[in-house]
Amino acid sequence: MSEYLFTSESVSEGHPDKVADQISDAILDAILREDKHARVAAETLVNTGLVVLAGEITTAANVDYIKIARETVKRIGYDNADMGFDYRGCAVLVGYDKQSPDIAQGVNEGQGLDLDQGAGDQGLMFGYACDETPTLMPFPIYYAHRLVQRQAELRKDGRLPWLRPDAKSQITCVYDAETGLPKRIDTVVLSTQHAPDIDHKALTEAVIEDIVKPVLPPEMLTAETRFLINPTGRFVIGGPQGDCGLTGRKIIVDTYGGAAPHGGGAFSGKDPSKVDRSAAYAGRYVAKNIVAAGLARQCQIQVSYAIGVAQPTSISVDTFGTNKVPNELIVELVKRHFDLRPKGIIQQLDLLRPIYGKTAAYGHFGREEPEFTWERTDKAEALRADAGL
Amino acid sequence: MSEYLFTSESVSEGHPDKVADQISDAILDAILREDKHARVAAETLVNTGLVVLAGEITTAANVDYIKIARETVKRIGYDNADMGFDYRGCAVLVGYDKQSPDIAQGVNEGQGLDLDQGAGDQGLMFGYACDETPTLMPFPIYYAHRLVQRQAELRKDGRLPWLRPDAKSQITCVYDAETGLPKRIDTVVLSTQHAPDIDHKALTEAVIEDIVKPVLPPEMLTAETRFLINPTGRFVIGGPQGDCGLTGRKIIVDTYGGAAPHGGGAFSGKDPSKVDRSAAYAGRYVAKNIVAAGLARQCQIQVSYAIGVAQPTSISVDTFGTNKVPNELIVELVKRHFDLRPKGIIQQLDLLRPIYGKTAAYGHFGREEPEFTWERTDKAEALRADAGL
Ligand SMILES: C[S@@+](CC[C@H](N)C(=O)[O-])C[C@H]1O[C@@H](n2cnc3c(N)ncnc32)[C@H](O)[C@@H]1O
Ligand SMILES: C[S@@+](CC[C@H](N)C(=O)[O-])C[C@H]1O[C@@H](n2cnc3c(N)ncnc32)[C@H](O)[C@@H]1O
Repeated sequence: MSEYLFTSESVSEGHPDKVADQISDAILDAILREDKHARVAAETLVNTGLVVLAGEITTAANVDYIKIARETVKRIGYDNADMGFDYRGCAVLVGYDKQSPDIAQGVNEGQGLDLDQGAGDQGLMFGYACDETPTLMPFPIYYAHRLVQRQAELRKDGRLPWLRPDAKSQITCVYDAETGLPKRIDTVVLSTQHAPDIDHKALTEAVIEDIVKPVLPPEMLTAETRFLINPTGRFVIGGPQGDCGLTGRKIIVDTYGGAAPHGGGAFSGKDPSKVDRSAAYAGRYVAKNIVAAGLARQCQIQVSYAIGVAQPTSISVDTFGTNKVPNELIVELVKRHFDLRPKGIIQQLDLLRPIYGKTAAYGHFGREEPEFTWERTDKAEALRADAGL
Repeated sequence: MSEYLFTSESVSEGHPDKVADQISDAILDAILREDKHARVAAETLVNTGLVVLAGEITTAANVDYIKIARETVKRIGYDNADMGFDYRGCAVLVGYDKQSPDIAQGVNEGQGLDLDQGAGDQGLMFGYACDETPTLMPFPIYYAHRLVQRQAELRKDGRLPWLRPDAKSQITCVYDAETGLPKRIDTVVLSTQHAPDIDHKALTEAVIEDIVKPVLPPEMLTAETRFLINPTGRFVIGGPQGDCGLTGRKIIVDTYGGAAPHGGGAFSGKDPSKVDRSAAYAGRYVAKNIVAAGLARQCQIQVSYAIGVAQPTSISVDTFGTNKVPNELIVELVKRHFDLRPKGIIQQLDLLRPIYGKTAAYGHFGREEPEFTWERTDKAEALRADAGL
């Protein structure tokens, strides 16, 4: 019986790139709370003792950026120089500029060459869904997130007091080549930052028993499953001290773990006039509703935009032979049931709210919290009916 | 006859994210020129009037980082405050730290739990090749790069003196669903920064006649092909003044334009002990040789690593039904003909040289310059023979 491997990874909220993402989205949320029509592109860099806030922000809101950055670092858990980073002691440099007026005229409704609200940039975005898990996410990324979420839980509730904020997980899954479904887990990699006083053996045992086993489906673990726990042997230095972090540098962790292509645009810190974010959310919404409607078992959509233009420059759908109705019909149904202009997406998914903080760790997709409107399957029934199923 | 669309984009060397990538790789090259065994993870942020250099560098080399950053900005063409950025007048902040000793013990040969040279990080990487163009790259990304390269050429040789450094291109291509091959170009988007004294109509005409038409294959352009040139209507403010740029934020432009998945790891600024870079280069090398050998018309490989461990944790190959021999055999051939340990990759592709500057704009793959050793097809004949073809 033919098999193949597929690997995805995730990182915890203490990973430096995720620290940067969370600061960017905390600033976006703080602005949106006061000013729904702000234009925000907030980028963050974190390194030993340093937070740099840069990007383009045009807003009437009055926000204390430095305070928000420090509070975000505190919430994540870097509250002690022992951990290599301390929210009180780090430098925070602020260098925001305004949105370029040349871009703004393309984006603002009633201005520029296209009078509709134009896309905030050109670019391509993908959406994806499949029936490997109940949330219609691929198996490896779904469980990679759960591992690092569990690490944070045991750290924060004090059950494993030697855990520190920075961690990474990785799952290699064996797939059945006939069904395309996950069969068993081949390898689990988990690295976690730790206090200096725990040795490698004790750490390995605790991680396997208290983090890995409670999270992964037991039937997917076999006697051959390999566990590689802190394979460098030591991970005391971590977070921004161990590795410079930047906003938008975990875009595959943020999406489908490599199980679908990516257009390249980052999410965190961007208000939804930026299609990099909003159209990728819409793509997930479309793909998930198609799978939920039973039109296909697996669905990938690509959309693309030109800056300043409202209508997408292209829409395409791939169902990898799992479709119950012709792909051309699915493309037609997408055009009929989903308004993929920036304004249509923002309205349909109610995106002008301060909902972005939660998205900035543990994945933007496959989440069950109510903020994640793009995870709703409220279009499935209408799609099904319209497809004649 | 059934058709579908696919879109890819590229950006010029003056795009702010690419300015950051080029500074990071210029610093890497300067270090490698003096110290082959340096560990470099150089991240860059550029914004209005500002360059921030951060990351982790352990080296014996004595390098003037500020000078290299300024020279890179000058070479790209931001040499006048009129353009919103001037290599002489911008601030350059330097905040490099050393590589974490906890990571170093995992990576260094003869240290850590695995005595071989371990991977510099965990992660997944993809390699891809297909027969859509002579360089075995997908058509849309290949030509998207050529458009912005042509923009830079006409800017630098003065033929279109009103061009400025920042530009983006995007190509939507119509594919034949039966053959999977490109049939014609549906839409071309090109935005270029420009001097204030050229109007939109004159700019549009010149861009179509002097940049677009000389580059794209005429048989792929039809009466229906749409040209969207500077669709915001105005693009005088550009570069780091218009948009904050960060290293590693154009990873889809750097690779296959979304025609293949991405593992998420960035390339620029990283020495080849980091598998994010070296194993993605190796993945391209493997996939290209498989297609060049005629084992498949299209080939995608995924590899993954655990930090500190030399052997990949997984290797898998997909040929999308275009294979002439079984996929399992192809995986076997890959293991037999390619040493995918970090050390094996570095030796085979001769990666400890200052060759990275050129990779940081216009794509890491599908290039014909001699530095791009991962584009060689020197394994094709042996693969072919071993496959019994
Ligand atoms: C290995 S670092 C990337 C390379 C780094 N920039 C350098 O210069 O070596 C990437 C991530 O690995 C994790 N990490 C850091 N130190 C580690 C260690 N000693 N063992 C395992 N993982 C570690 C952290 O999550 C960190 O953000
Ligand atoms: C549109 S900007 C991204 C959004 C930006 N951060 C903001 O806050 O509006 C992305 C890229 O588009 C290009 N760009 C900048 N100004 C533009 C304009 N006026 N028209 C078209 N493209 C532009 C530049 O290459 C820039 O790096």
